[in-house]
Amino acid sequence: MPKYGYFDDKNREFVITRPDTPTPWINYLGCEEYCALISNTAGGYSFHRDPKDRRITRFRYNNIPPDRPGRYIYIRDLESGKYWSATWQPVMKAISHQSSAISYKYECRHGLGYTVIKSRYRGIDTETTYFVPLGENLEFWALKLSNSSNKTRKLKIFTYAEFCLWHAEMDMADFQYTLNIAKAHLEDNAIFHETEYAPGADRFNLSFFACDRNVSGHDCDREVFIGPYRSEANPEAVEKGRSFDSFASGGNPIASLSITLTLKPGQSENATFILGVAEKKSKAKDTVRKYADLSSVLEKLRELKSYWEDSLSSYQASTPDPEVDLMVNTWNQYQCRTTFNWSRFASYYEAGIGRGMGFRDSNQDTLGVVQAIPEKVKVRIGELASNQFKNGSSYHKFFPLTKTGEKGGYSDDPLWLILATAGYIKETKDFAFLEERIKYIDGGSGAMYEHLKKAIDFVESEKGPKDFTLMRFADWNDCLNLGTDNETAESTWVPELHYLAIKEFVRLAEYSGQKADIKKYMALAKTIRDNFKKRAWDGEWFIRGIDKFGRAVGSKKNAKGKIYLNTQTWAVMSGIADDKKARLCMDMVKKYLDTKHGIMLMAPAYAEFDPVLGAITTFAPGLKENGGIFCHSNPWAMIAETMLKRGDRAYEYYKKILPTVKNKIADTHKTECYVYSQFITGRDNPHFGRARNSWLTGTAAWNMVAITQYILGIRPEYDGLLVDPCIPRKWKGFSVRRKFRDAIYEIEIRNPNRKCHGVKSLIVDGKRIEGNIIPDFQDKRVHKVRAVLGK
Amino acid sequence: MPKYGYFDDKNREFVITRPDTPTPWINYLGCEEYCALISNTAGGYSFHRDPKDRRITRFRYNNIPPDRPGRYIYIRDLESGKYWSATWQPVMKAISHQSSAISYKYECRHGLGYTVIKSRYRGIDTETTYFVPLGENLEFWALKLSNSSNKTRKLKIFTYAEFCLWHAEMDMADFQYTLNIAKAHLEDNAIFHETEYAPGADRFNLSFFACDRNVSGHDCDREVFIGPYRSEANPEAVEKGRSFDSFASGGNPIASLSITLTLKPGQSENATFILGVAEKKSKAKDTVRKYADLSSVLEKLRELKSYWEDSLSSYQASTPDPEVDLMVNTWNQYQCRTTFNWSRFASYYEAGIGRGMGFRDSNQDTLGVVQAIPEKVKVRIGELASNQFKNGSSYHKFFPLTKTGEKGGYSDDPLWLILATAGYIKETKDFAFLEERIKYIDGGSGAMYEHLKKAIDFVESEKGPKDFTLMRFADWNDCLNLGTDNETAESTWVPELHYLAIKEFVRLAEYSGQKADIKKYMALAKTIRDNFKKRAWDGEWFIRGIDKFGRAVGSKKNAKGKIYLNTQTWAVMSGIADDKKARLCMDMVKKYLDTKHGIMLMAPAYAEFDPVLGAITTFAPGLKENGGIFCHSNPWAMIAETMLKRGDRAYEYYKKILPTVKNKIADTHKTECYVYSQFITGRDNPHFGRARNSWLTGTAAWNMVAITQYILGIRPEYDGLLVDPCIPRKWKGFSVRRKFRDAIYEIEIRNPNRKCHGVKSLIVDGKRIEGNIIPDFQDKRVHKVRAVLGK
Repeated sequence: MPKYGYFDDKNREFVITRPDTPTPWINYLGCEEYCALISNTAGGYSFHRDPKDRRITRFRYNNIPPDRPGRYIYIRDLESGKYWSATWQPVMKAISHQSSAISYKYECRHGLGYTVIKSRYRGIDTETTYFVPLGENLEFWALKLSNSSNKTRKLKIFTYAEFCLWHAEMDMADFQYTLNIAKAHLEDNAIFHETEYAPGADRFNLSFFACDRNVSGHDCDREVFIGPYRSEANPEAVEKGRSFDSFASGGNPIASLSITLTLKPGQSENATFILGVAEKKSKAKDTVRKYADLSSVLEKLRELKSYWEDSLSSYQASTPDPEVDLMVNTWNQYQCRTTFNWSRFASYYEAGIGRGMGFRDSNQDTLGVVQAIPEKVKVRIGELASNQFKNGSSYHKFFPLTKTGEKGGYSDDPLWLILATAGYIKETKDFAFLEERIKYIDGGSGAMYEHLKKAIDFVESEKGPKDFTLMRFADWNDCLNLGTDNETAESTWVPELHYLAIKEFVRLAEYSGQKADIKKYMALAKTIRDNFKKRAWDGEWFIRGIDKFGRAVGSKKNAKGKIYLNTQTWAVMSGIADDKKARLCMDMVKKYLDTKHGIMLMAPAYAEFDPVLGAITTFAPGLKENGGIFCHSNPWAMIAETMLKRGDRAYEYYKKILPTVKNKIADTHKTECYVYSQFITGRDNPHFGRARNSWLTGTAAWNMVAITQYILGIRPEYDGLLVDPCIPRKWKGFSVRRKFRDAIYEIEIRNPNRKCHGVKSLIVDGKRIEGNIIPDFQDKRVHKVRAVLGK
Repeated sequence: MPKYGYFDDKNREFVITRPDTPTPWINYLGCEEYCALISNTAGGYSFHRDPKDRRITRFRYNNIPPDRPGRYIYIRDLESGKYWSATWQPVMKAISHQSSAISYKYECRHGLGYTVIKSRYRGIDTETTYFVPLGENLEFWALKLSNSSNKTRKLKIFTYAEFCLWHAEMDMADFQYTLNIAKAHLEDNAIFHETEYAPGADRFNLSFFACDRNVSGHDCDREVFIGPYRSEANPEAVEKGRSFDSFASGGNPIASLSITLTLKPGQSENATFILGVAEKKSKAKDTVRKYADLSSVLEKLRELKSYWEDSLSSYQASTPDPEVDLMVNTWNQYQCRTTFNWSRFASYYEAGIGRGMGFRDSNQDTLGVVQAIPEKVKVRIGELASNQFKNGSSYHKFFPLTKTGEKGGYSDDPLWLILATAGYIKETKDFAFLEERIKYIDGGSGAMYEHLKKAIDFVESEKGPKDFTLMRFADWNDCLNLGTDNETAESTWVPELHYLAIKEFVRLAEYSGQKADIKKYMALAKTIRDNFKKRAWDGEWFIRGIDKFGRAVGSKKNAKGKIYLNTQTWAVMSGIADDKKARLCMDMVKKYLDTKHGIMLMAPAYAEFDPVLGAITTFAPGLKENGGIFCHSNPWAMIAETMLKRGDRAYEYYKKILPTVKNKIADTHKTECYVYSQFITGRDNPHFGRARNSWLTGTAAWNMVAITQYILGIRPEYDGLLVDPCIPRKWKGFSVRRKFRDAIYEIEIRNPNRKCHGVKSLIVDGKRIEGNIIPDFQDKRVHKVRAVLGK
């Protein structure tokens, strides 16, 4: 049994069995406008649409003790005066593996869009279900209390949520201002937080916290509730057993309601709390009335669960490896959706005040969800294209709520729009999308097709002295800062992406009948390839770039940073390298970058700051891009290996960073073992194997692509569903049930000769098909497909 | 006996007798490049020159529990395993007024530039002296441990300082980045924090923490020292009694050294810790060696104390009111120096990431310190003038380290330069300063005289439809945001300041013999005065401005914000109002704005947000500018009352906001009772009387001016030292010892007829003098002055 928890696959839940996980293990609730991050001990925060401009509750990042505050419920036994928390934090009673006569029992279940935390202490059981219902801007905290002791118990319940003063950046920096604006008070059994604040655009100033039972007291002023020199662990109100009925006029507003309950032995009672935002107080009150009855709340939970079941049903696999199935059928899809929803906006590691929606990030995120939600992907790609300038460049990040953005000198950004668009059209065959007119940020508009063409042209216009793309501030690797706008440093990786993007664009041009473009861009692709072949090879691998002094970066000539992963994987993925060099460079990846915990982004790690290389050299060795196992880049190696037909190696790489596998080494890995983290610490650091920055990462989408499209090998193509697996030799076969353009395909793959690739025969609905593309039926029916490998 | 502490005037210390003050009661250590904020329980943080770019240690603002972390020393009894803190926080043992068998005894002495915290617990006494020595970029923590029990004790001491990752803004927001850059380790008995970080300009990456005894262990990694789900209150290392000897490679770097000591009954031992910054490691090691001996540390403490004694000696008064003497002789001067040093850069309420040096703030700050440090004031005024543009406008705030600044549309900024310059020349007679060439921020340079003229001209060029100065974003009242760059809202207060500044400028023009300017600017002053008389009167007081729709603000016609303080006080101070209106408007101040806790900035407070009025209406009623007792504005009322010869009322206003007076109502006032706070909550709020934002406020300088120059009435003029007191009738007299232009004046004022003003006779060195100006001897001698009031 793993130390901290296990997968309950039947319920699609991860069950955490002790509260003191090595880092907070969190969940994201809400998949529309309201987002609530919640940890396994109910820590976390909420926001509405934008984590900077509309932060609802406050979070103390990087705090000690960690993970404060949160959505807390205190339980106080009115007879003994003892009190504890329904979610372990913040009171943190001794837990059962610790030595204590009366130990605290605990369980947390993170499900899809909901989290349930149970406790048992001093004969009282609690079960608190947290979720954000569909179609509403609120979260429920549905508490069930049961008396498992043999005497009647009189209990007082206190809630605690700490409001953010709306603007998260001011809230953490401008205390002179923010600590004088709060207004919160009780009205009609609910707390209303109506604080006005300075930023003018999109003012939003009403949140509310209500209960479906009559409250016996309340507090809106943090300092009154907590008391002097105390913390969430021992609030004065809870210790004294009574709310002080404070309102907030300045200071820190909170939502604390108290209710009193009497439970006979065996008896249970429910109390449901709502935390939400509304435009007007009357609307908030309507909402509270709407959910006055528990059954209406539970109905919303059922609706949410069936929404997710439906969504996941677009892709379900059954392989010989249950760890693969767990991820691909539930958790990887779930993480892909979360990442698609919130880009890199806000997490436990990203304070949510500056990142916004990433242009390259969000384009890549579409690749992981397009099979499940093609309509939403189309809208998102259109939104991304509208963050492009007339010259084909684009914002690097943007803020949909305030309609602002920032460029910042990233040389790869615009090209990702082509990969996302190709992915969408391959899934949907919606070529009409290419003709839709979409605005440019600096005026005018153009067909989507034109947007893509301009992206290619813009990158083509940015060439350096050796005919590679100018690096500018950075390419995909944000922290490898070889140049500035005035400097000549070049990226050898952007040409690989450029080459692939042009090939994808040419395919679209073919389907669109744009003959002049086909010719022009095929020629351009050849020029790029010729230059790359001539100048990017280092002898055993491809260099990563050229610094402003004309020196190779990622070359055997360097003392540190000799070999980088991305130029090798993309040499293969893009098809720019010939077969021999493709194999050799990927063998060098295996030799120099592969570790037991995954593939490092580069090696050896830099030991000293070097201003010519930039921020990458400020990281401690083995962390982030400086020799870390940057998980986003690992699936590119898996894809490259499938292209080289090395299924065992692709699968080996896949398993090395698979979260489910990390459950066995949770004390090393530290972050959640049901989602990917941004990176795992590399070999050159004493914390080798420790992951950081879980949840919002391009790793989710690319691993989904790697496993479903390249390893399991069911890949949408314009003409149909391509079947091209590249699996471990030991597998006998596997099956996939997949939605594709209004039809369902139940695909069974057999691997009788234990070759790992090559479709020898393909039978669709009982009929043999030539080649390996399943026809595009679009008939809303279920089709049985059987393929045999070993060609 | 006041509840929290008392003044030890002999030692110029404020003695805090219990640690749980209503807010942290702090001190500022360091008056050169190194600044350390320290609370009465050793909380706080340090920075070098710039609190954003060179933050040395980290602070969690607005935290619960409050005031973490700090400069902590844990003491662990190796026999019993009990541990506690030498400064109460963070372990927070029960204190003597609480019920506890073994209670914790405590005392904190905040002195000038140093803080001493004593504890007694379980037979162990500690005395920790914190100070920043002159001429060094470091702070000492000098610990003395004594065994007052009757058995030999074996103790282990652990220190704790949490490093900031240099750039305070990234440190609190960009965890994805910052948590991967830390590098800290032990070398030669000291911890070195050598973290590199991204911002390129003025990189600074070395701090160190050392001890003058051999250390037995160390920790550099916060998570290792503290342990999972713990805090500073119960670190795992202290609980287990051993350092883990961790180094930091990513994560949060700390400085924890441990030493082991054995104390016989009655025995004492010392251990001195140094936290500092250096350019190179070799220099840091030299510094550590330099202070290896305790006597060298104590010598620096003596040097610091005599530096301050010297500095204060420039002005010492003896009045019938000891509360006045306490403030004017020690604490008000001390706060003036602190405010002069750090402007509004960083406090417990100002996170130190965005404010920088204020242009108007720092000009005003010079007024409070010019008698003590005229040379430093000259340098500062020159620096301020160099933040002016060729057109006479200026930055609103600027950052000396990075040489950057921001404008921001404040209509009053440039004028303050004239008041500061006049103040400096009145103190020094250094008219040559007017001829010094000083650069403009946008190129070129001009004589200081030209800088001043341009300031007047710029403001004159910014007129609205009613010939008042355009408000722009705001004037002195930052949060009364009537207009923008494109709007016609006007300030009626800026014309008052403008009028006064022109009068001061004309005096300088007279001494400079600039006849054309005299004529021109006298005419301009008249125009401004005529317009003001014609249009600013509301019937019983002066309006505050005109909104963008042409409506009066601060008028009896308004439902809220009927009367504002500043246009009344400045009508008198500037001399722009005739005598009858001057008296009437100040009587209306008394009637509508005065309260038992001080004078409110305006009334009645706004209850609802109004975008036409701006941020002032986002404050809860009674807070900040929205009907708060904004202390900065109170001395202007005192000065105005002395000009109206109403000494009792001036003194009444002075006493109402005097910090020393607040010691009796500390639980209401909450902030330190030895320094002014920015504001006290006004009548329209349930927290009426509660102060906020202590220490860095223009209140310090203006109260120093009000008490010394207008109430006690010893005021530098170009031709000598003016004697013009306006004191309470009940006073028999008072005396002042003051340095002025290289001479010392011992001035005794008698008030035999209990009239409060009017010098009837003036005797200097035994000789009767006509008028009330003491001649300007400049002879480095002591002169005896006796004046009798009652003319």
